[in-house]
Amino acid sequence: MDEFALIRRYFAALTPNASGVALGIGDDAALLMPTPGHALVVTTDTLIEGLHFARDAEPADIAWKALAVNLSDLAAMGAQPRWFTLALTLPQADADWLAAFAQGLQALADRYNMALIGGDTTRGALSITITALGEVPQGDALRRDGARVGDAVCVTGTLGDAALGLRLGYAANGFLRERLDRPMPRIEVGIALRRLAHAAIDLSDGLAGDLQHVLEASGVGAHINVDALPLSAPFLQFADPGQRRSLPLGGGDDYELCVCLPAECIELACAKVLMPLTVIGRIVAEPGLHWVDADGATIAQSVAAYRHFT
Amino acid sequence: MDEFALIRRYFAALTPNASGVALGIGDDAALLMPTPGHALVVTTDTLIEGLHFARDAEPADIAWKALAVNLSDLAAMGAQPRWFTLALTLPQADADWLAAFAQGLQALADRYNMALIGGDTTRGALSITITALGEVPQGDALRRDGARVGDAVCVTGTLGDAALGLRLGYAANGFLRERLDRPMPRIEVGIALRRLAHAAIDLSDGLAGDLQHVLEASGVGAHINVDALPLSAPFLQFADPGQRRSLPLGGGDDYELCVCLPAECIELACAKVLMPLTVIGRIVAEPGLHWVDADGATIAQSVAAYRHFT
Repeated sequence: MDEFALIRRYFAALTPNASGVALGIGDDAALLMPTPGHALVVTTDTLIEGLHFARDAEPADIAWKALAVNLSDLAAMGAQPRWFTLALTLPQADADWLAAFAQGLQALADRYNMALIGGDTTRGALSITITALGEVPQGDALRRDGARVGDAVCVTGTLGDAALGLRLGYAANGFLRERLDRPMPRIEVGIALRRLAHAAIDLSDGLAGDLQHVLEASGVGAHINVDALPLSAPFLQFADPGQRRSLPLGGGDDYELCVCLPAECIELACAKVLMPLTVIGRIVAEPGLHWVDADGATIAQSVAAYRHFT
Repeated sequence: MDEFALIRRYFAALTPNASGVALGIGDDAALLMPTPGHALVVTTDTLIEGLHFARDAEPADIAWKALAVNLSDLAAMGAQPRWFTLALTLPQADADWLAAFAQGLQALADRYNMALIGGDTTRGALSITITALGEVPQGDALRRDGARVGDAVCVTGTLGDAALGLRLGYAANGFLRERLDRPMPRIEVGIALRRLAHAAIDLSDGLAGDLQHVLEASGVGAHINVDALPLSAPFLQFADPGQRRSLPLGGGDDYELCVCLPAECIELACAKVLMPLTVIGRIVAEPGLHWVDADGATIAQSVAAYRHFT
C-alpha cells in the first residue's frame, strides 16, 4: 500500500468536518480559518521509540501520548485545542499497528473535537512528531514570564506517578502505568485559569527544571515545600524512600500544570478547575529555587531536570 | 550541552522580531497573530537521512531542503510564508553540524522573512520535520480541485533536473546538484497566480503522479504533450535517452508548480510570474492522464510516481 492510501485509510476518521477547517488532508496544505480576536498557539513535540516509549509499547498508547504531550503545552498557555498535523516515521507499513495507532490518536483528539489537518508518512526508525494548533482570546494566554512576588505556586494532580511507573515497568500498578502511558492534558485547567493565573508551565521535564524556567523568565525566586508535593496513594505505596522525594521533583513526564497565582485567588481557582490544585510554595523576590520542608527549614536538594542531550 | 542551550544557541538568529509573533521560542508554545481576513495555510514534511538525502549531505543543504519542500507546498496554495516549527532528531549534538544546519535554514527563511517559532530536539536517527505556516487572503487559495475543461496545463521552470542530479551523484553538473540540494520554492509564482489559476500542485513526486491528483480532485482528464516538457540544457546534455523521458515525468523532487488556468490568461500569467511558464497540455473532460507526442499521437507511457511505501 502506498503512502497516500495509508494516510487515507487509517486517518480518515480523524479528519471530520471540524470547525475552522476550509480544506483538510488531500491538498498540498490545509486551509484553516482562525477565530478573529484570538491568538494562534503552536507547539511541536517528537516522541522517539526507545527514548520516549518502549519498543513494545502499545501503538494506541504511543499515539495518545504523542498528542497528549503537545496538548499539555497548549494547556499551559490556556489554549483551546483546534487542529494538529502528524509526521509519522515507520519502519514498515503494518495495517494492525496503524489501525491501533489511529484509534489511540482519535480517542484523545475527539475529547477536544480536534481535527487532523495534514501530515507526512515516511519510512525509518519509529518516531512521531505532532504539531498542535490551538487558540486563546488575545491577551488571555498564560505565559512563563508573569509570576509575581507573593504569588502562590500550585500544581494540578499528583507528581512522580509516571516516573515511578516507568521504573517499575510491567510490574507497575495500573494507575501508575496509566499515568505513564495515557497522560491527560490539563486543557480545562488552563482555560479555567485564564485571567486568573499570572504564569503557568507544564511539568514535562519535572517540577525542579520546569519551575526554574518560570522563575528565570519572571525574574523571581520561589520557596517550595517538598513535604507539600501532592503524591498519589499508589505512588506512596510503591515508591522507595529515595524515589519518594526525587521522582516528584525530577522524574519528569508528569504533564501536570504548575501555576502561579495571587494567594487571594486560590479558593476561586480551586473551585474553577474541578480537580485537585495543591499549593506547594510561594514566589519570592530572592532569585533561585529554594527547597524547604514542612517546618520551613531549608534543605539541600540536588535535582537534575530531565535533559535529552545531557 | 543540554537541549535548551542547543536550541537557544544555534537557532536564536532564526527567531527575529518577525511580524505576527507575540511570543516566540521559550514558552510552552508560541503565540501568533493571524492576519484578519486570511486563511491559515499549514503543511508538514519530514526528511529522513538515507531516504531523502545522503548520509554525507551538507547540513546546510539538508536544512534548506527541509524548509524548501514545505514552502513548495505553501507555494502551491498561493500562500505567503509566515512561520515554521522545527523538530530535529539527531544522533548526537555536534556544534559544527548545528551551526551549518542553522545557517542553511536561515538562508531560506530570511528570503521570506519567516520566523522559527518553536520546535523540539531529540536524540535518534537523523530526521527533520518542519511544519510551515502561511497565509492567503480568504477565497484566494489555489487548490487541486478547481481544474476545468479547456484549461491550459502549465509548469514552472524545468523538470527532471533533481532526479538526474541524484542519479549522477557527485559527478553531476553543478546546476543539477543545485536543483537537487537547494530547490527554490515557487512562492512568488503561487502568489502571482492567485485569482488567475484554477488549480495548482507542486511537483514533489513527479509530474505523472502529482498531476493525477489534480485530475482526480477536479473530476477531469488531461492531454499532456511529452515533447513539450521544459528541460534544462544540463539535463539535455547529461541525460541518457531513457532518462530524457522518464525523469521529467516520474523522477520527482522537482518542486516546480503545475498549474491549470484559462487559456486566455496564459499571456498575463507568463508576464506576472517572472520566470518560465510552459504550456504542456490541456484539461479535457475524458478522465485520465493521456500522453501525446508533438504530433498529437497517443503514446504509451508507464510512469510510476515516487512512493514512500510502495
